[in-house]
Amino acid sequence: MATITVSENHAAQPTTTATKYVYFFGGGKADGNGKMKDELGGKGAGLAEMTNAGLPVPPGFTIQTEACREYMRSGGKVSGDIDKQIETALRRLEELQKQKLGAGENPLLVSVRSGAKFSMPGMMDTILNLGLNDQSVEALAARSNNPRFAYDSYRRLIQMFGNVVLEIPKSVFDEIFDAKKKQKKAKLDTELDAKALKEVIQEYKKAVKKHAKRDFPQNPHEQLVMARDAVFRSWQNDRAKHYRRINNIDDMLGTAVNVQAMVYGNLGETSGTGVGFTRNPATGEKEFYGEFLMNAQGEDVVSGVRTPVHILELQKIMPDVYNQLREITTRLEKHYKDMQDFEFTIQEGTLYMLQTRNGKRTGRAAVRVAIEMVQEGLITENEAIFRVDPNQLYDFLVPTLDEKSSKVEVLATGLPASPGAAVGQIVFTADEAVKKAGHGDKKNPVILVRAETTPEDIHGMEVAAGILTSRGGMTSHAAVVTRGMGKCCVAGAGDIEVNERAREMRVKGQVFHEGDWISLDGTTGRVIKGKLNTVAASAENEDLKTLMGWAEPFRKIGVRANADIPRDAIQARAFGAEGIGLCRTEHMFFDQDRIPHMRAMILADNEKERRAALKRLLPMQRSDFAGLFKAMKGLPVTIRLLDPPLHEFLPKREKLMVDIATLSSADPKQKKALVGEYREYGAKAVGDLKKLLPALLRRVEELHEFNPMLGHRGCRLGITYPEITEMQSRAIFEAAVAVEKEGVKTHAEVMIPLISTVKEMSNQAAIVRRVAEEVFEEKGRHVHYLVGTMIELPRAALVADEIAKEAEFFSFGTNDLTQTTFGFSRDDINKVLPTYLAEGILKQDPFAVIDRDGVGELVRVGIERGRKTRPGLEVGICGEHGGEPSSVEFCHQVGMDYVACSPFRVLTARLAAAQAGASDQLKTEGGRTK
Amino acid sequence: MATITVSENHAAQPTTTATKYVYFFGGGKADGNGKMKDELGGKGAGLAEMTNAGLPVPPGFTIQTEACREYMRSGGKVSGDIDKQIETALRRLEELQKQKLGAGENPLLVSVRSGAKFSMPGMMDTILNLGLNDQSVEALAARSNNPRFAYDSYRRLIQMFGNVVLEIPKSVFDEIFDAKKKQKKAKLDTELDAKALKEVIQEYKKAVKKHAKRDFPQNPHEQLVMARDAVFRSWQNDRAKHYRRINNIDDMLGTAVNVQAMVYGNLGETSGTGVGFTRNPATGEKEFYGEFLMNAQGEDVVSGVRTPVHILELQKIMPDVYNQLREITTRLEKHYKDMQDFEFTIQEGTLYMLQTRNGKRTGRAAVRVAIEMVQEGLITENEAIFRVDPNQLYDFLVPTLDEKSSKVEVLATGLPASPGAAVGQIVFTADEAVKKAGHGDKKNPVILVRAETTPEDIHGMEVAAGILTSRGGMTSHAAVVTRGMGKCCVAGAGDIEVNERAREMRVKGQVFHEGDWISLDGTTGRVIKGKLNTVAASAENEDLKTLMGWAEPFRKIGVRANADIPRDAIQARAFGAEGIGLCRTEHMFFDQDRIPHMRAMILADNEKERRAALKRLLPMQRSDFAGLFKAMKGLPVTIRLLDPPLHEFLPKREKLMVDIATLSSADPKQKKALVGEYREYGAKAVGDLKKLLPALLRRVEELHEFNPMLGHRGCRLGITYPEITEMQSRAIFEAAVAVEKEGVKTHAEVMIPLISTVKEMSNQAAIVRRVAEEVFEEKGRHVHYLVGTMIELPRAALVADEIAKEAEFFSFGTNDLTQTTFGFSRDDINKVLPTYLAEGILKQDPFAVIDRDGVGELVRVGIERGRKTRPGLEVGICGEHGGEPSSVEFCHQVGMDYVACSPFRVLTARLAAAQAGASDQLKTEGGRTK
Repeated sequence: MATITVSENHAAQPTTTATKYVYFFGGGKADGNGKMKDELGGKGAGLAEMTNAGLPVPPGFTIQTEACREYMRSGGKVSGDIDKQIETALRRLEELQKQKLGAGENPLLVSVRSGAKFSMPGMMDTILNLGLNDQSVEALAARSNNPRFAYDSYRRLIQMFGNVVLEIPKSVFDEIFDAKKKQKKAKLDTELDAKALKEVIQEYKKAVKKHAKRDFPQNPHEQLVMARDAVFRSWQNDRAKHYRRINNIDDMLGTAVNVQAMVYGNLGETSGTGVGFTRNPATGEKEFYGEFLMNAQGEDVVSGVRTPVHILELQKIMPDVYNQLREITTRLEKHYKDMQDFEFTIQEGTLYMLQTRNGKRTGRAAVRVAIEMVQEGLITENEAIFRVDPNQLYDFLVPTLDEKSSKVEVLATGLPASPGAAVGQIVFTADEAVKKAGHGDKKNPVILVRAETTPEDIHGMEVAAGILTSRGGMTSHAAVVTRGMGKCCVAGAGDIEVNERAREMRVKGQVFHEGDWISLDGTTGRVIKGKLNTVAASAENEDLKTLMGWAEPFRKIGVRANADIPRDAIQARAFGAEGIGLCRTEHMFFDQDRIPHMRAMILADNEKERRAALKRLLPMQRSDFAGLFKAMKGLPVTIRLLDPPLHEFLPKREKLMVDIATLSSADPKQKKALVGEYREYGAKAVGDLKKLLPALLRRVEELHEFNPMLGHRGCRLGITYPEITEMQSRAIFEAAVAVEKEGVKTHAEVMIPLISTVKEMSNQAAIVRRVAEEVFEEKGRHVHYLVGTMIELPRAALVADEIAKEAEFFSFGTNDLTQTTFGFSRDDINKVLPTYLAEGILKQDPFAVIDRDGVGELVRVGIERGRKTRPGLEVGICGEHGGEPSSVEFCHQVGMDYVACSPFRVLTARLAAAQAGASDQLKTEGGRTK
Repeated sequence: MATITVSENHAAQPTTTATKYVYFFGGGKADGNGKMKDELGGKGAGLAEMTNAGLPVPPGFTIQTEACREYMRSGGKVSGDIDKQIETALRRLEELQKQKLGAGENPLLVSVRSGAKFSMPGMMDTILNLGLNDQSVEALAARSNNPRFAYDSYRRLIQMFGNVVLEIPKSVFDEIFDAKKKQKKAKLDTELDAKALKEVIQEYKKAVKKHAKRDFPQNPHEQLVMARDAVFRSWQNDRAKHYRRINNIDDMLGTAVNVQAMVYGNLGETSGTGVGFTRNPATGEKEFYGEFLMNAQGEDVVSGVRTPVHILELQKIMPDVYNQLREITTRLEKHYKDMQDFEFTIQEGTLYMLQTRNGKRTGRAAVRVAIEMVQEGLITENEAIFRVDPNQLYDFLVPTLDEKSSKVEVLATGLPASPGAAVGQIVFTADEAVKKAGHGDKKNPVILVRAETTPEDIHGMEVAAGILTSRGGMTSHAAVVTRGMGKCCVAGAGDIEVNERAREMRVKGQVFHEGDWISLDGTTGRVIKGKLNTVAASAENEDLKTLMGWAEPFRKIGVRANADIPRDAIQARAFGAEGIGLCRTEHMFFDQDRIPHMRAMILADNEKERRAALKRLLPMQRSDFAGLFKAMKGLPVTIRLLDPPLHEFLPKREKLMVDIATLSSADPKQKKALVGEYREYGAKAVGDLKKLLPALLRRVEELHEFNPMLGHRGCRLGITYPEITEMQSRAIFEAAVAVEKEGVKTHAEVMIPLISTVKEMSNQAAIVRRVAEEVFEEKGRHVHYLVGTMIELPRAALVADEIAKEAEFFSFGTNDLTQTTFGFSRDDINKVLPTYLAEGILKQDPFAVIDRDGVGELVRVGIERGRKTRPGLEVGICGEHGGEPSSVEFCHQVGMDYVACSPFRVLTARLAAAQAGASDQLKTEGGRTK
């Protein structure tokens, strides 16, 4: 038990209490226990818990995380108190083992391992065999009667210590070792005998002297202190920081250090070592799962030098040990009430448990394990709900790469922008994608590779199997659109150089052309060379249904989907969406058959021409909306009026400039191609371009904006061009009336974007309501609808009480709200985000996980003020956050009515919302045991 | 005397009280009084007050503003109550005058005039001679014994009524009248005799029938109702809306309608009409000032057809009337305790006062009048403080156009971005400006004309006499920079088409080339053709000193100036600045001799090269800072670290694209020119460009941002490139130490821009403090300094309690805070602002006048939370709002320590701050009489 010992020496200064820095475990009893992960880290807590449970654990002690934090705070020092407590613990260990650290005939050797609160496998450093020196190695050789083992252990210590503590490059030692193997004509490490290893040791020591400007420390106590500090420092290494960043682990936690008596799996044929799981971590099946090697050390199992053996084989080799291991791990699972991931060593026939922890598993496994543990009576249904990370439900919805199907050569790693797997031939343009991808049976999978995608690429993105971009973040166009499509996307793979003009991509010195095969893993962000197979997935899963059946009754808030087309809406319904939270109407205009009318509208010189173009778009929008209403069968369909700035629909300014500048010097073929490109704008012959292009550029210049995000968009469009709002409203209400006439209920929620003042809202709401009345009058039928707004600007949240006078619902657009609250352009944030995360300035990407302090306060204020004016105001969220578990929890906490997310996040949102609800309810009831 | 009469008829419904819509005045007594401007408008209140004071005012009645508001609310109807009250008032008027409206032998004729709370001269409509019809015109002819006068009055009524009420274009009547003059060979209107005018009347009536599809109404009561409604409607006409917009008048106020018995100044040689001021409105001198015409109607005085005579001449013509007028106006000035602007008519020897109001005046006049009125004992010193609009103090600082020096042909009107006058020859590029402007004695004034300006134009802007842009708003680059320079600028003159390539500008079908002369009036936004003279100005004014001497003791908050260079700092001190509130260090890098190093820094491949370039910039920055410290002699100098995104220093992306695309087809001359342009980047020969330009483009593309405002700028630069913060800190502290060693005190406030989290602040503050200690150590001297931040993002305001842990001062950057709170890019807002103001969605440009509800709440929250953590935290503002009076008042109210503004706004800010302080104090003391 964690007790804070008050130092008697300081009785005169009653405010000073000594912290307990060191926790001993061994001899069947530990100072700590399994709950003390904050202090002891996961590993240390596990060792204490196993020791207390009477399991065979090599004894030792854990230096708690506070020591690491002190080390960081003080810039690399620890107080004398810590040193004293370590010495005390070490003496206790020596007494228990009846050994002396690195001394005497039977020297005590220890391992020094990091162990943070949250598992960070392989991220921090470990030192084995500590205590060996020129004397004790001889003692070990004599006592083990195995000089080769002793010298090998010693050279491993020097190597690990040299690398980890003294920061000498690993290659220095590798070169010496490889040279020795060559000299001795040895193929395997094990072919080097004791003599050769002694020579290696000599050379290692020289290398240490040369690179570290000091001798390898012969004093075992000095070794221990230096190793401890190196572990502390390893908390701050780049790998560890990176790992914490992606896993949202607080940089301030620090790591504990575990010092433990060494046991050896390489002392001969009755020794061995292995790792295992109490259930299959990939499928969740209840089977004893793992692998081991006889006469080997831990690192041999994972290094791949020798092929490990399935754990069931152990039963044949050492049936007693196997049975003991089975019995222990079964007890551990029962004790922790969760699937265990364990490490063990057999030293000369004696089993030692080195580690146990809750095992990482796939989403499918997580669900199955949770369900079966309920069936086995290990956990309750309420506990099972929390055993699955909502993000993992994605596993049920996307295919995965079959990595055994082919050699895996990772070319680059980008952001895992949209999960799943995709395998296909490279194309560099959306048009080429459409051409290559084919239709129906003759479908050829293509991967669309772009520096970044734009709305004009949509048609190519729709037919592509996956998308790869070299620029852009987790909320770039490619990322957002593909997540909406449930399509695999790797974004911002910066190592890849895309040359769209030359139609090639370069990476790692290799050049890839159109038609070359690549495979994408959107779940990890890996770009893999060549053609791997994929494994399909399906959401129709009984375990999933069972789990959701337990979880859903706790869910207090609704889950809607963002969907722009009927196909997505139907998909979303299948995943359990209870409405459409965001239909982005502009996506409807990028279709090949529509964009010309949209462009005509934008290029119109006057309102009359603009109205004519809008009239041509009206029937198209109407049929889109009708499709959505039919798909949703009376559930709410939230339709956002046109939002993006109009220049997004026109050719890019710089392209026009270049085309104009090069027109006169272009050759006939190029000129003809240009005519083709601008045909839609009225170019019929080369001669037309001279007038047309500058005119087009003039309009594009007029529309050009320095900061489009803060520009002429959202309701500002509808206010300056009320005819756009009129057309869209008409399309919505004509569709709703027509669908209701067919006997299908409708529930339209018309959403005005980018409101910052109530007057904008009243201006636009008045148009919507007027058009609604006109349509109802004309068609002789009235349908139910609401007019509301997105709250996506700080000012809207602040004056929400005013806005709620006109708005019948709020939907928080937290993408834009995050942009404006932080002053971060989400298209540009990648220039600073890596540094910000690395420096700990941000704990996570605020576009991925909602910022509760800043953006969150505005959300809270907006809801509170909105409902002050209009009690019961319907409030939701439609930003990307609506599908992210911790953000969903936040939405639950602040009292939203629903969250909305892309169809493929609906399951995740449902479980996250249920967990939030359950957490609340069980806390209140005091009934939650976890 | 405003009494609300409770209708006895409604005794059974006690909650319903009848509103008093109509206020009578006449017979020495009025229902209303001079304080009732809200109800009666300025004119109506003046008429009531003059009547009560026993002055000779033609009797009549005022329909109060609530009727207009009802008319607007109901969409064009007024309640029967209003009609009834009007009829009652009309009967009372008829009884008093012993006349009947448009009937009998002596028909009552009335004028119908608008009159809003705030004077809107010429913005709304007036109808004279109402009551005339085919019968009453004959009675008037007989009674006046002047048929020509009677028919002329009638045709004027038809014309005004036709135009204003029936909305027939004025040209219809003008054409008829001109044709008649031609037919009768008349040059002047007065040459048409009664017969000709009778013919005109016939044709006017036909025209009314044709265009309005109805006869001119013969019923005088119908005329009155229709005229009244037309006045109500005129509140909503475009001119009036526009006027209210620029003058910040609430659209919801509505106008009153004044119906008043006509008096005629055109009844012969003992009749006349005139306008005047009790003091000179241009200079403030105490002299009777005005002009009149005998035998004329009011509009003749202002139309310019006849040249009016100076009012002193009246003494000779009609000494009694003159003396009566002098006596009355002197009484009026005493009564209102302010300079009066009056209108009068003499009808057959009898003087009538038609209007009196506080006269508009120039800034210089305002100050002089206020001072002299105190000397005269009319007002107190405390009252005098409020008699000057702080904005008007600008008049003391800038030259003005001498509009009598030449014919004034206004080409276009843009935004009055930076006041003053400028006359010069057009240039289209900054380089040309430098070339043309010359130096020293040989200075040629040039006007730099650009579509919009960028930081790269600074050198041209510095030498130009004035700046004219066709795009951009009140806070565009051109506007902000010129205001900082105190240089005249007209921005966003949308009618002007600037073609920089062709070096011409087109406006109103005229083409202007380089070298053509134009004149700018930055105070009104007018662009005038040709070369006018200017009148110089000086701030050394005794009256101004006196006024400021009365005002300043009330001022609670400091006034600092925004200044980047010592020259501006010295200027600011002269205007009374108490420190520098914002030194934008980036402006120092755009200098011709510096930008190459800045570019080298940006193009550097690694930190080492970057540091080398920074090292070259260090001495330059250090000398800049030293200059500022010396100029400010120990007053605070707030230095903002580098803020703008780095791509602002490089060539534009689209220019590079075009240069690359056209390189191969360029002729040798063009190629040579390109080499020159890119010499700084290492181009020596044409051959170099092929490699250089794509490399340069690559870096520009890397730095390219979709929304630079929300991009890689502010502290984000300092965090990703800490060496920039280091260099700037070093320059600051080395300069401060050096200056103090020279015996001059310094007080540096180092300001970190664009903070959104406390960790950004601690990151940058740590660098600044470390470098400070290094410099102090090296130089052996310590100087006092603070490290603080700009609060310019919503999140910063929300987490100000956190940020204040690290920041020793706050400066609200309300430009950016407005951008992010509203989601308005200030470079792009002009696309929507005109519509927003016209539609009443915004009352004013939020970049000009601080938005108290949204941005203001964040400011209040930021101050409150900041001071919760750090009581006494120094808080200021450095956005453009710091020089705008109502925003300064806000800053005072929320408890800021100071405001900062451009040097030429310092006087304005001082007076505005003093008024705010006085207003508070006098309110508390109950001593303020105004």
